[in-house]
Amino acid sequence: MSLKRPASLAQTSDLAQRYAQIRAATMALAADLSDADATVQSMEDASPAKWHLAHTTWFFETFILAPSMAGYRLFDDQFGFLFNSYYEAVGARQPRPRRGMLTRPSLDRVKDYRAHVDAAIAAFLERDVDHKVGALMTLGLNHEQQHQELFLTDILHLFAQNPLRPAFKSPEPLAVGEADAVELSWTAFDGATETFGHDGDGFAFDCEGPAHEAVLCPFSLASRCITNEEWLAFMADGGYRTATLWLSDGWATVQQEGWAAPFYWEQRDDGWWSMSLRGMQPVDPAAPATHISYFEADAFASWAGARLPTEYELERAVRDVEIAGNFADSGRLRPAPGPTDADGLTQLYGDVWEWTRSPFTPYPGFRPPDGAVGEYNGKFMNGQYVLRGGSCATPPNHLRATYRNFFQPEKRWQFSGLRLAKDV
Amino acid sequence: MSLKRPASLAQTSDLAQRYAQIRAATMALAADLSDADATVQSMEDASPAKWHLAHTTWFFETFILAPSMAGYRLFDDQFGFLFNSYYEAVGARQPRPRRGMLTRPSLDRVKDYRAHVDAAIAAFLERDVDHKVGALMTLGLNHEQQHQELFLTDILHLFAQNPLRPAFKSPEPLAVGEADAVELSWTAFDGATETFGHDGDGFAFDCEGPAHEAVLCPFSLASRCITNEEWLAFMADGGYRTATLWLSDGWATVQQEGWAAPFYWEQRDDGWWSMSLRGMQPVDPAAPATHISYFEADAFASWAGARLPTEYELERAVRDVEIAGNFADSGRLRPAPGPTDADGLTQLYGDVWEWTRSPFTPYPGFRPPDGAVGEYNGKFMNGQYVLRGGSCATPPNHLRATYRNFFQPEKRWQFSGLRLAKDV
Amino acid sequence: MSLKRPASLAQTSDLAQRYAQIRAATMALAADLSDADATVQSMEDASPAKWHLAHTTWFFETFILAPSMAGYRLFDDQFGFLFNSYYEAVGARQPRPRRGMLTRPSLDRVKDYRAHVDAAIAAFLERDVDHKVGALMTLGLNHEQQHQELFLTDILHLFAQNPLRPAFKSPEPLAVGEADAVELSWTAFDGATETFGHDGDGFAFDCEGPAHEAVLCPFSLASRCITNEEWLAFMADGGYRTATLWLSDGWATVQQEGWAAPFYWEQRDDGWWSMSLRGMQPVDPAAPATHISYFEADAFASWAGARLPTEYELERAVRDVEIAGNFADSGRLRPAPGPTDADGLTQLYGDVWEWTRSPFTPYPGFRPPDGAVGEYNGKFMNGQYVLRGGSCATPPNHLRATYRNFFQPEKRWQFSGLRLAKDV
Amino acid sequence: MSLKRPASLAQTSDLAQRYAQIRAATMALAADLSDADATVQSMEDASPAKWHLAHTTWFFETFILAPSMAGYRLFDDQFGFLFNSYYEAVGARQPRPRRGMLTRPSLDRVKDYRAHVDAAIAAFLERDVDHKVGALMTLGLNHEQQHQELFLTDILHLFAQNPLRPAFKSPEPLAVGEADAVELSWTAFDGATETFGHDGDGFAFDCEGPAHEAVLCPFSLASRCITNEEWLAFMADGGYRTATLWLSDGWATVQQEGWAAPFYWEQRDDGWWSMSLRGMQPVDPAAPATHISYFEADAFASWAGARLPTEYELERAVRDVEIAGNFADSGRLRPAPGPTDADGLTQLYGDVWEWTRSPFTPYPGFRPPDGAVGEYNGKFMNGQYVLRGGSCATPPNHLRATYRNFFQPEKRWQFSGLRLAKDV
Repeated sequence: MSLKRPASLAQTSDLAQRYAQIRAATMALAADLSDADATVQSMEDASPAKWHLAHTTWFFETFILAPSMAGYRLFDDQFGFLFNSYYEAVGARQPRPRRGMLTRPSLDRVKDYRAHVDAAIAAFLERDVDHKVGALMTLGLNHEQQHQELFLTDILHLFAQNPLRPAFKSPEPLAVGEADAVELSWTAFDGATETFGHDGDGFAFDCEGPAHEAVLCPFSLASRCITNEEWLAFMADGGYRTATLWLSDGWATVQQEGWAAPFYWEQRDDGWWSMSLRGMQPVDPAAPATHISYFEADAFASWAGARLPTEYELERAVRDVEIAGNFADSGRLRPAPGPTDADGLTQLYGDVWEWTRSPFTPYPGFRPPDGAVGEYNGKFMNGQYVLRGGSCATPPNHLRATYRNFFQPEKRWQFSGLRLAKDV
Repeated sequence: MSLKRPASLAQTSDLAQRYAQIRAATMALAADLSDADATVQSMEDASPAKWHLAHTTWFFETFILAPSMAGYRLFDDQFGFLFNSYYEAVGARQPRPRRGMLTRPSLDRVKDYRAHVDAAIAAFLERDVDHKVGALMTLGLNHEQQHQELFLTDILHLFAQNPLRPAFKSPEPLAVGEADAVELSWTAFDGATETFGHDGDGFAFDCEGPAHEAVLCPFSLASRCITNEEWLAFMADGGYRTATLWLSDGWATVQQEGWAAPFYWEQRDDGWWSMSLRGMQPVDPAAPATHISYFEADAFASWAGARLPTEYELERAVRDVEIAGNFADSGRLRPAPGPTDADGLTQLYGDVWEWTRSPFTPYPGFRPPDGAVGEYNGKFMNGQYVLRGGSCATPPNHLRATYRNFFQPEKRWQFSGLRLAKDV
Repeated sequence: MSLKRPASLAQTSDLAQRYAQIRAATMALAADLSDADATVQSMEDASPAKWHLAHTTWFFETFILAPSMAGYRLFDDQFGFLFNSYYEAVGARQPRPRRGMLTRPSLDRVKDYRAHVDAAIAAFLERDVDHKVGALMTLGLNHEQQHQELFLTDILHLFAQNPLRPAFKSPEPLAVGEADAVELSWTAFDGATETFGHDGDGFAFDCEGPAHEAVLCPFSLASRCITNEEWLAFMADGGYRTATLWLSDGWATVQQEGWAAPFYWEQRDDGWWSMSLRGMQPVDPAAPATHISYFEADAFASWAGARLPTEYELERAVRDVEIAGNFADSGRLRPAPGPTDADGLTQLYGDVWEWTRSPFTPYPGFRPPDGAVGEYNGKFMNGQYVLRGGSCATPPNHLRATYRNFFQPEKRWQFSGLRLAKDV
Repeated sequence: MSLKRPASLAQTSDLAQRYAQIRAATMALAADLSDADATVQSMEDASPAKWHLAHTTWFFETFILAPSMAGYRLFDDQFGFLFNSYYEAVGARQPRPRRGMLTRPSLDRVKDYRAHVDAAIAAFLERDVDHKVGALMTLGLNHEQQHQELFLTDILHLFAQNPLRPAFKSPEPLAVGEADAVELSWTAFDGATETFGHDGDGFAFDCEGPAHEAVLCPFSLASRCITNEEWLAFMADGGYRTATLWLSDGWATVQQEGWAAPFYWEQRDDGWWSMSLRGMQPVDPAAPATHISYFEADAFASWAGARLPTEYELERAVRDVEIAGNFADSGRLRPAPGPTDADGLTQLYGDVWEWTRSPFTPYPGFRPPDGAVGEYNGKFMNGQYVLRGGSCATPPNHLRATYRNFFQPEKRWQFSGLRLAKDV
């Protein structure tokens, strides 16, 4: 979590504004949820919406208000136990698999909690804050944005467990989807030794740095993500039944779980449908395939005679693209045209997270920050793979070229897809 | 399910009245629950309150209105899938461990469902009903009363998972409890060949009959249930650490689960407390021990140099007591004084279910009824033990001398305790 | 374990002779086994052959030689830990699921152990022994006979795990099998109050007594066990796919385990084969169906419009038959002809154990013997069903009318089958 | 698996000699094992000794004799099913967790199998072999050497399950051990871009290449491995009870498994002992700590204010050392003195495998070989960490600077330890 530039008075005013915006965006997500919708935990990996609302609030209360605001009183002494996620240094907590047992406090009371903390933060930011607190505020906001995305992936998972297949929001097209997938082409990149990772200019999570050099061999990248149509071809060719395409652990998972299609897909008389935030929808052949595990992405790449990219390869491709301010109406970043290696690449942001073949490891020289927030990312650097890009559920202004998302190779409930790469 | 006497017009009027009373009693239980409270499933054995409300309604809709009321339209086509419990003959259903995923329909919509069915039943009962339908109505009402009890045991379990330990109802003393446990004495019964089971006069569940003869050897029964004070003595004497007191499966469970006290007990600086429907309460030494598994009850009996009674022994004791109309203010049945073998026995009803050493098996000549309701009890006749009596959570007018409750020997979330017996 | 008649000098000489015979019979079973065959444990329920050889020896050493023979020295101090089965009162032991880890001591050393104890017992029996020791000797011999049977069922299970499907003994026809199944007929029995259980005359295991009265309603029994041909008809009629035929726990097991035929059955191009002690053999349509769980037996009976008998019903049937000394060449007991209720019944002993619907519970007045041998049966009186009769793997002179074998309802590796009963 | 230089006649003669030596070394390991010792599988990760003997033989039969030797007849048609490890392309096989069920074929028959294949290979090598077959022969021999090490780690695990704690070989000091651990010092290395991985000169496994450039930041390495004495200090300081030292998955494992010391350690009245190939031995404070999981190694490094090295860092250190022909009597490689960066480093080979923080991933440009041997390493590139160096159980002439061993982070039964590294 680097925030090198000092937080001046002007900046705290920005901070207050950003705080208000981001917190309001979270509340907007919860607008149509019932108390019950917001309370149930559908699997150990997912958290209840209410928990997301409260935990992000607890973050500000615990790391900013309690230590730094004179005279601040905790909203509720017991919320520390209920809404700590995994900070061992902070203390004991409700076990993760039992987050769905908390029918109390109610959704309304959690909203009161948010209002209480929001008011305190607003008062707090009327004065100047030092660099450390400014950095924690920024971390808290990025943290909240991460939970906005998890809020969506988790509510989708919950609603997918319900035979009624409710829609989260029927009118809004919050979904992966492109009606006009173009022919897949390949873009070649030269080998080079370059600097990767975050250089400390602007916010980044701790795991994105330090910046460091790495060698890249020549490679090429597919111009777009793999589509559902291509995925259906993989299925039709026996992809899920051909052991030699799979990593050993992947094949074991396929057999144990009976995987035969992406997560959320259902075969009906009139073809494949998929659960989405708009309820059940026919699978769109032109849209990027999503809700794919790393194991599936890797097997697909083997089947296609290609491989998954490394995280450095994707970082280089994204960096080569001018991305400033270039949002399409749908809220998706599109590369600007220009004479770079990455010319021709699309869907780098805003559709699906792209699995890379890079395990989530510390960069050279990485050291977790001191204190409890040092547990933010470092202790999860085992058994996970990096995903790059960002999905339709990611707040558009939350991403950057160095962003490292990460999940275990068998997870499928995120908006995760793949782009192919090749050695040259 | 025997209902031998014909349902006359007068009786259908009674039926309507009883229906209204019992259905209202169920609604009263839900009065203070939030949508979230009513939705979450805290373990596979327990069901959400909302599910209890809907399933009991589905029972009337499926077994009475749909087949017997001309022109009846289902409230919602999908509710059959959602709220069937285990009737294979009726069709597919939401898997039991996933009942807590149903954040929709909401609690309010389930209440609408109840109102819809209640109105239809009221209309339906304005005409005469035949014996078969009358019997099914009576079964449905007894079924609903069973779920009233499960509603309470399940909500207690849910609230016990919450670190806030909410109270279901704070003002009301719905709990096991006797402030004045008397000295335990023994009542002797002669051996005899007698008739047990339900003789068909009035309602009984199918498993309570047919009436049949069985031989009883001489035995004695303790005058009351084992108290918490006695249980504490068992604990202090190493009861939970002494393998030779336990059934082999029981000892394996003790070690695997780390049992060292009754379910819901918590040791605090000032002694033992227990979760209850009124929230956490100090363990009352004089109250009957409860939330005890069969394994624990059996080990206690071994430790005490006694044994658990058989279900026939308890049936005989209860039958010997005049129980007609003898309710205490607290809603507990008390035996009337009288010169019977059972003189001196207390707490037969209304405190805790009493584990017997009798596996839940079919009586001689038992045959499940035809049709789907034949699945009511018969298919569960494996791996469970009979409990007799009735607890503080049982509707007082729901019990009778032949009533057979049953659970697996490791279950602890019911209001289950024990009374000792001895061979003479 | 009752042995009421005093053990006189004459009897100890008998005892020595019986000891020598039974111990030799055990050794004969191991004749063709390799060290590896005798060491591997194929599942938690089964024990290695070597373990059976050693444990039965440990029984004599621990309960007779160590406490009663002056100057006896243990063969090896560590064998007490290795070969105690489940006697908590005797001390710690190798966990049951880890019995197969004992590649040392070798099979040869275990044979030395047997020889050492045999010599000591022979010397010990040259003097008179008191009643208590005589009873323990008899118990030890019956215990050894039980393990002879388990030796066979367990080695069959082990060999069935091996894709080579080795034969235990190829020349000998040790198998369930009747080439000439006759038409099934029914024998009716009147209702009556009779005495059941062992009356103390001759040896019986503790759980067979005390003798006690019980009421029997009128019933009829099938003349023979269900054959493979009948089982194939059940399968062909969808027996394994029809939920309503099954106990709830049974149906869950069918689905979880994918049961579609008896244990050890394999479908080949030319029909069904079954693993046996003679290796793979075609399923004989006329032979009694075996390696059937209780759940399957119960579902079959439902399908056939009948039920399983109770243990009292089978005890009465066997007792009605004159069984003294009436062995066929094949080692199977056959009822003598005679004008009894049970006229016409065959296969009561020596083919398959017959599942009864009676849970394994204590008889009225049952108390386990004092001391460690009190753990022999009593602590297993939970979650199991009684089987009556005896199988082709049971030593023929080991059985009697009151014998109660018992297993959990999902177990299939014993030679277990069924005979139908009906209410009259 | 690169073997670039052509196999000439002279080389096939070498090959025959190396074949004979390596195969004999395997047989020597089995010299003192009984049939039972060689048959039992002590956990899913370990294989029976007999299986190792047969599987390595199957490798030569399947990949060389069957396809390349005219007229070769399989020793036994069923061995392909029994002794295929994981080659999906070759066909079905005995499931890994069931390898210990194979009491047949006997150890003697497996030895016959080895002799049969050895004779065929000897005859086969009398003629010239082409490059491809030569490469497969070399692969087969290196494969056999890998199994020699697994043979030892697996038999140690088996014997550790036996309460008798048998010694594999009592006279021989096959064990980790240094009686004279010197003071730990640090050696600094400059940053640089260098070539890593195998360059194709001589044998290497497929995953060791291709050679490729990578950037190394400046770092220092500890002069020797962490000792038991240092590990005891970690334990004494609460290392196993301090959550913040551990990776999140590591801490979950510690709690679930109850880890409180290295695998095989046992606390006795006179201190810590450890199971070894010589039976139970006191823990030697000066010896390298071993039987440590990655999780433990990583937590130790955190506790020590250091980190684990990357695989490149260790490869660079080893390469800097002149290792040619410098074997100590104990069979351990020792670096020759010389003016290199790595001056002062000891224990690089021959004591314990050293965990690195590098996940086992494909090097840039890696492609598995065509055919079944393409499954050798590539499909395991998930969820494992690279270990470098080599242990006391590794054949000394089997190692090289580019060797990549790999295991999951929770595994402890290998001779695995750690050397610390630091950023400079």
